[in-house]
Formats: sequence, structure tokens, C-alpha cells
Amino acid sequence: MTATDQPSTLLATLGGAYYTRESIFAAEQSQILESMWFCAVRCADLANPGQFRKIEVGSESVLVVRGRDGMLRAFLNVCRHRGAQLCTVSEGEVRRNIRCPYHAWTYALDGKLVAAPNIAGLTDENGAGIDRYRYGLVPVALTEWLGYAWVCLADKPPSFADTVIGDVTNRLGDPTAIDRYGIEDLQVGHREVYDVAANWKLIVENFMECYHCASIHPELVEVLPEFSKGLAAQYYVGHGAEFGSDVAGFTVDGSAGFGALPGITAEQDRRYYAITVKPTVFINLVPDHIIFHRMYPMSADRTVVECDWLYTPDVVSTGRDVSRSVELFHRVNQQDFDACERTQPAMSSRAYRHGGVLVPAEHHIAEFHQWVVSRLGAEGMNHER
Amino acid sequence: MTATDQPSTLLATLGGAYYTRESIFAAEQSQILESMWFCAVRCADLANPGQFRKIEVGSESVLVVRGRDGMLRAFLNVCRHRGAQLCTVSEGEVRRNIRCPYHAWTYALDGKLVAAPNIAGLTDENGAGIDRYRYGLVPVALTEWLGYAWVCLADKPPSFADTVIGDVTNRLGDPTAIDRYGIEDLQVGHREVYDVAANWKLIVENFMECYHCASIHPELVEVLPEFSKGLAAQYYVGHGAEFGSDVAGFTVDGSAGFGALPGITAEQDRRYYAITVKPTVFINLVPDHIIFHRMYPMSADRTVVECDWLYTPDVVSTGRDVSRSVELFHRVNQQDFDACERTQPAMSSRAYRHGGVLVPAEHHIAEFHQWVVSRLGAEGMNHER
Amino acid sequence: MTATDQPSTLLATLGGAYYTRESIFAAEQSQILESMWFCAVRCADLANPGQFRKIEVGSESVLVVRGRDGMLRAFLNVCRHRGAQLCTVSEGEVRRNIRCPYHAWTYALDGKLVAAPNIAGLTDENGAGIDRYRYGLVPVALTEWLGYAWVCLADKPPSFADTVIGDVTNRLGDPTAIDRYGIEDLQVGHREVYDVAANWKLIVENFMECYHCASIHPELVEVLPEFSKGLAAQYYVGHGAEFGSDVAGFTVDGSAGFGALPGITAEQDRRYYAITVKPTVFINLVPDHIIFHRMYPMSADRTVVECDWLYTPDVVSTGRDVSRSVELFHRVNQQDFDACERTQPAMSSRAYRHGGVLVPAEHHIAEFHQWVVSRLGAEGMNHER
Repeated sequence: MTATDQPSTLLATLGGAYYTRESIFAAEQSQILESMWFCAVRCADLANPGQFRKIEVGSESVLVVRGRDGMLRAFLNVCRHRGAQLCTVSEGEVRRNIRCPYHAWTYALDGKLVAAPNIAGLTDENGAGIDRYRYGLVPVALTEWLGYAWVCLADKPPSFADTVIGDVTNRLGDPTAIDRYGIEDLQVGHREVYDVAANWKLIVENFMECYHCASIHPELVEVLPEFSKGLAAQYYVGHGAEFGSDVAGFTVDGSAGFGALPGITAEQDRRYYAITVKPTVFINLVPDHIIFHRMYPMSADRTVVECDWLYTPDVVSTGRDVSRSVELFHRVNQQDFDACERTQPAMSSRAYRHGGVLVPAEHHIAEFHQWVVSRLGAEGMNHER
Repeated sequence: MTATDQPSTLLATLGGAYYTRESIFAAEQSQILESMWFCAVRCADLANPGQFRKIEVGSESVLVVRGRDGMLRAFLNVCRHRGAQLCTVSEGEVRRNIRCPYHAWTYALDGKLVAAPNIAGLTDENGAGIDRYRYGLVPVALTEWLGYAWVCLADKPPSFADTVIGDVTNRLGDPTAIDRYGIEDLQVGHREVYDVAANWKLIVENFMECYHCASIHPELVEVLPEFSKGLAAQYYVGHGAEFGSDVAGFTVDGSAGFGALPGITAEQDRRYYAITVKPTVFINLVPDHIIFHRMYPMSADRTVVECDWLYTPDVVSTGRDVSRSVELFHRVNQQDFDACERTQPAMSSRAYRHGGVLVPAEHHIAEFHQWVVSRLGAEGMNHER
Repeated sequence: MTATDQPSTLLATLGGAYYTRESIFAAEQSQILESMWFCAVRCADLANPGQFRKIEVGSESVLVVRGRDGMLRAFLNVCRHRGAQLCTVSEGEVRRNIRCPYHAWTYALDGKLVAAPNIAGLTDENGAGIDRYRYGLVPVALTEWLGYAWVCLADKPPSFADTVIGDVTNRLGDPTAIDRYGIEDLQVGHREVYDVAANWKLIVENFMECYHCASIHPELVEVLPEFSKGLAAQYYVGHGAEFGSDVAGFTVDGSAGFGALPGITAEQDRRYYAITVKPTVFINLVPDHIIFHRMYPMSADRTVVECDWLYTPDVVSTGRDVSRSVELFHRVNQQDFDACERTQPAMSSRAYRHGGVLVPAEHHIAEFHQWVVSRLGAEGMNHER
């Protein structure tokens, strides 16, 4: 960012190259997506031993698989022999082992190499066989929290408590606030996948501010009247936006939703809290359900977003109609992603070479920009072309 | 170009890399398309206040819009706040202002920032509000001539008279010759858009010479018999190719066209004049209509060409049948663009590394090549790989 | 390759960048595909004078054409004047000359420039006309062997005997062994074209080893039982894999094929020999037919493979049913190319940055890797990113 003589009420954004240049995106893959905890899958999607899901983390294909011991583990999706992808479908279930279909190298669900054709022939002149773990699947760190499996490709993953949980606590103020929603015990009532032609950081910035709410989110503002003032709910630690007095629930028409989640406090009832967990997760808390976004940045100008609507097992198992609560945030998502797609093309204009400006209600986005720049280090310098 | 011992009748062309390399195209965008006057839109297409058209000039998206004061203006198509594209459709009409749909920053048709949510909050501690023009739309220079709006993205645009008008005068000899056609008062009788898989310079070179006319333009040669000799009409200052003695009009079958344009001289009647206005315009003058080409170079190997057939208001308003005059140059266009598309793939061959050759009837193309090289400066050096 | 402390039974492969990086592929085009003999077309496909085929050799478009004197010749597919491609269809037949459709420069089938509009005007002030061969088509070296035309774009082609024939002799042991099959006199009974989303070297490596045969080639192992042991048939000079005792012919169901080719020895009967001719040809010899693969590497991750099944003229002309012998290797091809396509995506993983491993039955592939690295020279260094 260039020092300019602009008024103190306006802060500079990142320059446009941060949203378009492939070298920046490659650095983000390496220094952010492959270095931090990345929210990968809903654990309950892999209920049975042998169930797996294949996901993209930065530039890598990662398998998350449930072991016969009931543990979830993650591995790079690559055979150690000649490099064939072990799984090419996005999800599935194996019986006991993961067998490479090319030369039949076979791995246990904990990654150990358990069989290969003529494996005895791999014993060397000293009589030593090959190390079954050294030539087993390459492991990826995995932690479960809020009912999701979070993976980290770094050799030395950062502290989960300081980063992921820290982002949530910093937002809500109280470290126990998130626990009261019991998110790990909820179930997916609906899932929607969006393919967005925009840089992932535009989606983060959009989620962080509400200056646009009056312009593009009529239904949301109807339910949360304070959003019409454009204040950044996320800027005030612990603040949740209050439902309108005539609003019965967090639904597209303000009609009643379901009973409040059992653990939440009176303070948390009739309020909406939005949380950004860097780099790729958004959590939305309302009294009766949770809206949980995970992003998959695919290229400098494309991001896939998977959004779960989570309800109590009772709501899901009895087949109650969730369509009105789903419809509210589905519209918000579409409105936001349309705005991001409209913004992406201008990132390469000379008019955005030194970026745009942040008004006071957006000033906290500057911290996100500083965080991105500091993660990229030397690779993020001097990118205003 | 390499000095070789080729015969003096053959001049070297540019090397193939000039037609294929993305770095050359980027330099052309910067040093040519975004630095010179670029013919953008037919003024009459934007008749009403608030009507706009979105066009691509080099790498930039530009809005041309008619003000409430009747003036045409051009702006970069980017909101000054967070960079959303203001317009995403290719043309349209606004009532009074241009309002960014993301956060509702709103601009008058002269570019001034006239409204924004909580704009009072942008006043700083000294009580100074923000400068409504500094944070208004980024203006782009615009000049009207021949009924077209020409725009220039350069900070200091070159002289319109020396460049655009100069190219026409150098071709026709007489600075008043073009005026006699009254092009600004004509109307579009037909418009055709071609998407050509070839570098824009191949299209210019093709237009500049007639050595190919006998090979690929049977209908044109029928109307203009001297074109069968392959002479470059554009090389001879003031020369117009004469219609064949049995030709009644500039139509696909030589049948009669319309009455001659009222202002033209006897010398100009029954003659065809072709003019290249660098970098992207071709003007074709015949007694009863004008064929006006504008190119939009999209990438090193793709160019969109928009071609207008212009007639007197009387011809257009009475709905007279223009199909036979349209058909003639439409065929010529298709024949030319096919030839350019056939040439593009060979530009990357080792056989064209040092280029091909220009025969005497093409020698004036060498001046165009020298002009391109001089515009590119250091960026165009040493590109024979 | 990095020295590691892995067991002596495992050799390192090339690092993944060799299979993904465009700069490596460009170096392979230049140093391998455009520098060595490249098997282009079946000569009999161009039976008549004027028949031509257009093929891609590395980055170049090459025409192979039968002259009026009956000779096959090859030329770059580029007009010497302004660079138009002479032929844009993949095959065809001209009457007497090759005429550029742009400006009508016209070449004899031996490449000589025989006509051009106003060619007399190309005579210079000293009265010298232009050299009809210097400005003729750019010739490409061509040699016929085994009924195929092999071309070489190098200024000084390597010895055909040492390279192409040498690869065959090194594999079969006896320099006369290949001749006994009389391949030049056979006819194409079937041809199949495969578009494979994998680097060409993965296809070579796959063809060189049989460690995968038991996993993916059930029909082939049925016919050649020793392949179930995974030994690399190609490693043993002169060795051919023997048909199973209950197998009547090299067909998908082991049923009888046709009579043995007349020239082969008793040793060659009932055996299968696979030969890799670097860089892009595989030859498969069985008693009654030949399966001949030619690869066209199109990009780092795409290769087109053309496969001919060759039989005696008698089999082809009498319309005998070749479907069971075609079906066997067609399935093998599909199985192999599926495996290669599954391997390509993992080449960019960190798990393959330093490559995978070769088991003893694959150790001879290391020689191929060393050959590739030595061809690339400085361009192939330090590509483990």
C-alpha cells in the first residue's frame, strides 16, 4: 500500500494485483492454505470405517478417511511407488485397505504399507526389508473441532488453540460462548455448494463488513434491522445483532424457526453472531441453527464454497421443514457472491492498481490485509505493478 | 529484424514472436492501445442522456455515457470504493446517476461522487469531507469525430489532429477530402461483429495490401478491376480504385447502389478509397456509403472486429434494401479474416522465426512494422527467440 | 534426483516437475521431439502423388507429401511469403502443386517455388530473380523404415541406424530379427487414436514395465502367463514372452488368430516381443500381426497416441475378422492409459516432488530417465522445485 494524502476516514485496501496475480495465489497456497489449519470435512459424513472423502487443500489432493479403530486420519492422495492417485472420486468407502489400482501397493487405513507384489524382493542385500511406514502414505495433521475435521499440511502445524479457536474467542469475547451451541452434535439439514468466480479474499472481505447490507440484502436487513445502518457487527467483540421486534425466527420471512439450541444463554437467544476463522471458514450462529461456510480457493479468480445448515438431530431426523431458514442465508450467499463476482474483473484495472478505500465501518478489514501481507512475506512485496 | 542477403525486392517482416508472445501483446496494450486514440462507439448509439456503452480498450473496461447536458464522457468502469464494476452489461441506460450495486456509492453522469451510505461519516477530524471529484469516477479523454467517440487512456493524449486526422490526410492527400462524405451525419444501416482468431496486426497488414485480392476476393475484383493487378491502392496518396466500366454500384453483383453522397466531388464518384487509421480503424469510402471497421484486440491471437455500413438518413429511414452493398464487404471481411486465421498458427513456426518477406506491392507494410517496433521501445527488442 | 538413504532395491524416479512444468515440456520439444527421428505416417497412407498428411512434430506443423516422382518428402507447413499455413486439414490430395490460398505462392511437390503473382517483379536491379529453392518450402529430413516415414527437424539429424534401428536391435539382440516380420509389406487392418491426459513419459514408463500387468491387464496375463510375475520382458535382451500352453493365438479370448507371418523363425512363433523406440514409438510383435504405437506429445499433460494393427495383405484384402486380435491390445491400451491419467495429477504433489521409487522389475526405467535428463542438458537441471 502506498502512503497517500487521503482523508483519515479512508484507509487503503490491498492493490488489485493481490487478487489477480498467479504468483500471489501460489504464495497464498503455500504460505496460508498449506500452512494453516484448513477445515476439510464434516466428521459425521465419514461415519463408517473405510469411508473417505477427497478434498483439495491449496495445491494438494488430501484423503480424509475413517480407520477401523474409529479414528479419522488424513493423507496425501498419492501412491508412494509411482505416484498414481489412490482415489479419483470425491468420496467413497473401502473395505479394509487402500489399494493403488496401478501396481497394487496396498495401505492400511493408518497409512502403513501392508502389501505390494513381490514385496519380499524389496529386501536388500543386508536382509533389511523396506520400512512399512516410511513407504506408507504421507500423513497430514488432523484435529476434530465443532464436528469438523481440520487438517494442516505444515511440517509443524501452528497451535490450533491459538489460531482457529483464537479467532472464535476473539470475536465472541467469551471462550465458552461457542461451546454452548453444541455444534459438534448438530446434523447437516441442508448443504449447498457455490462455484464463485472471485478471489477468496474478496469473499472474506465481503463477509467481514455490513456496509453493503442495506444495498444487497433486503431479507437479511428485515430480520436484523441494525444491519441497515451498515455497522460492522464483527468489529464489536461479543456483539450479536438483535432480531427485529416483530421477527419470530431467522427465516426468509421472519416466521418462527425451531426451538433454541438447548445450551445457549438468554443473551445468545434472538441474536445473530458472524465469525471469520482465517483463512477459509465463516460461522454464523443463530438460536436454532448454525450456518457453516468452508471455502476451497481454486485459483486467483475462482473459489468453491460449501455451506452447511446445521440443526439438532431431532429437527433433522423428524424431517421438519428447514426450507425457510435455508432460504434466508442461501439468498444472502447468492447476493454476496454476485457482488464478489462483479468486483473480481475490476481488480486488474489501473483504477485499482493501488486499491480502493475502506470507510470507517470497514476499517477492521485492514487488519485482514495486514495479516495476508505478513503471511506472504517477501512474496507479497511490491505487487502493485 | 535480421539483416540478411535477400534480394532488394524482398523486405523482411516482423518475426513470428510479435504475433504470438503474450509479453508483446501486453506491451501493445500499454504502449499502443492504451496510449493512442481508440475509436470506441458510434455517438448516435448513445442518443439519450444516461445511455451508456461498455467497451474494452486494451486491458481496461471503459464506460462511454451521454450526460444530462448532452455531452458524451468516458470513465473507467470501476467503483472508487471497493472496485466493483459499475456496469456488467455491454450497453444500457440509467436515469440520473450511476449507482454501484455493491455498497451504493453513486456518481453523477459527469463522474462526481454524489452519494454514499453514511457519507457524512467520511468527514475527518478537521471537518473536511471527501473531495467529490477526487473520489469520483476516473475520467478518460474523449473526442468526437466522424460521428464516433474516440477515447484515450493516456495521461497526456497525443494530438488528435496529428495522429487520427493525420493518418486520413496522409492517405487522401487533401485534408478536406474526408469531410465531403459527411460521415458524422450518416446512419448505421447494418452492423456486423466478427470474432477473429488472429493477431490484430495480421488484420492491419491484410487490409494494407491488395496482393491477395486476386486470390481471395473474386467479387471485389469484379467491381474494382485494377485490384486484380495486386497493386497497393493505399500506397498512392490520393488514389482511389476506379469502378469497372460495366459496374453500376459498389454491390456484390455490381448492380446500382444509392445516389452519391451529396458532398462528394466528381473525382470521388465511382471510386473506392481505403484508409488505415492506426491502430485499430479502417475506413472504406465509396460514393453512396461508408464501411467503417473498429478492432478490439482481445489477446495475442484473438481480435473482435465491429463493422458498420453507413448510409444517408434517407436510405435508412425509408428502409431501402442495403443487402447487396452489405453483402459485398461482408464477403470481403470473411475472406480476409479466414486468411488471417490461417496465418496465425504459423507465426510460432521456426520457419517464421525471422519473419516472411514483403514483395514490392507490400513494401509500405514495412513502415507499419517500424511504427509498431518504435511504439514498443525496449519491450519490443530481441523478440525473435 | 536426490541421493537418499533408501534401500538399494529401490531407485528414485524423476521428480514430479518433469511431468508438469511447461518449461520442461518446451525443452523436450526442442531437445527430443524436434531433434530426433520422429515416426510420422504409414507410407501406404500416402499412395498417390499429391497425397499429403499434416502432423505435429514437437511444436511444428509438418507436411508429408508424395511427389510426382513417387518419393515421400516432408516440409514445414508454412508459406515462405507471409506465413500462412499451406494446409489446414489433417490429410488430403493436391493435383500438381501446393498453392498457398492467401497470395497464391505456389510450390512444386519437391518444395520448389514455381509461381507467384508478379514473380517477374521480384527480379532485383541486377537482373537477378529470386532463388526458387531458397524461397521454396523448408525441407524436413525423411527416412522410410518398416513402412513408416520417419522425419527429423534437426539441422543435422542423428544416425538413423544408431538411434531408431539401434533401439530395436538392442532389444531383440539380433539385428535381423525385426526384418523377419516383413513389417513394411503389411497392411493396416485397424487403427485407433487415443487422446490421453498424461505426460508422454508416463506412457513410455508404463510400456517399459510389467509390474502392473497382474493388476490391470487380466486379458493379457491370460494369454501371456509369465506376465503375472511382473517381470520386465523388455529388460532381457532377445526375450519374448511365451503364449500360455492353452492359448491358440494373441486374441482377447486366446482363440486362434491367423497364420504366422511367413518370414518368422520357430523361436519367434508363439511369442510376444515389446520394443520401445525412443522417443515416441512402441512396436509389439506377435506371430500373426504387429501392433505399432506412435505418440504425439501435445503438452506436458496431454498425449495423442495412434495405434495401428498390421496384418498380411491377404488377411486385410479378404476382409477376415480381426476384431478379436484388435480387442486384446485395445483393452490393454485403455487399461494403460487409464493408469497414466490417474498418475498425472499426482505429479504436482509435494509427495512426488523428489519422485517415487522403482522396484527391481522397473530398474531399467532409470536408464530412460537418465537419457531424458541428458537430452535436456542444462534445461533439465534443478527441476525439483
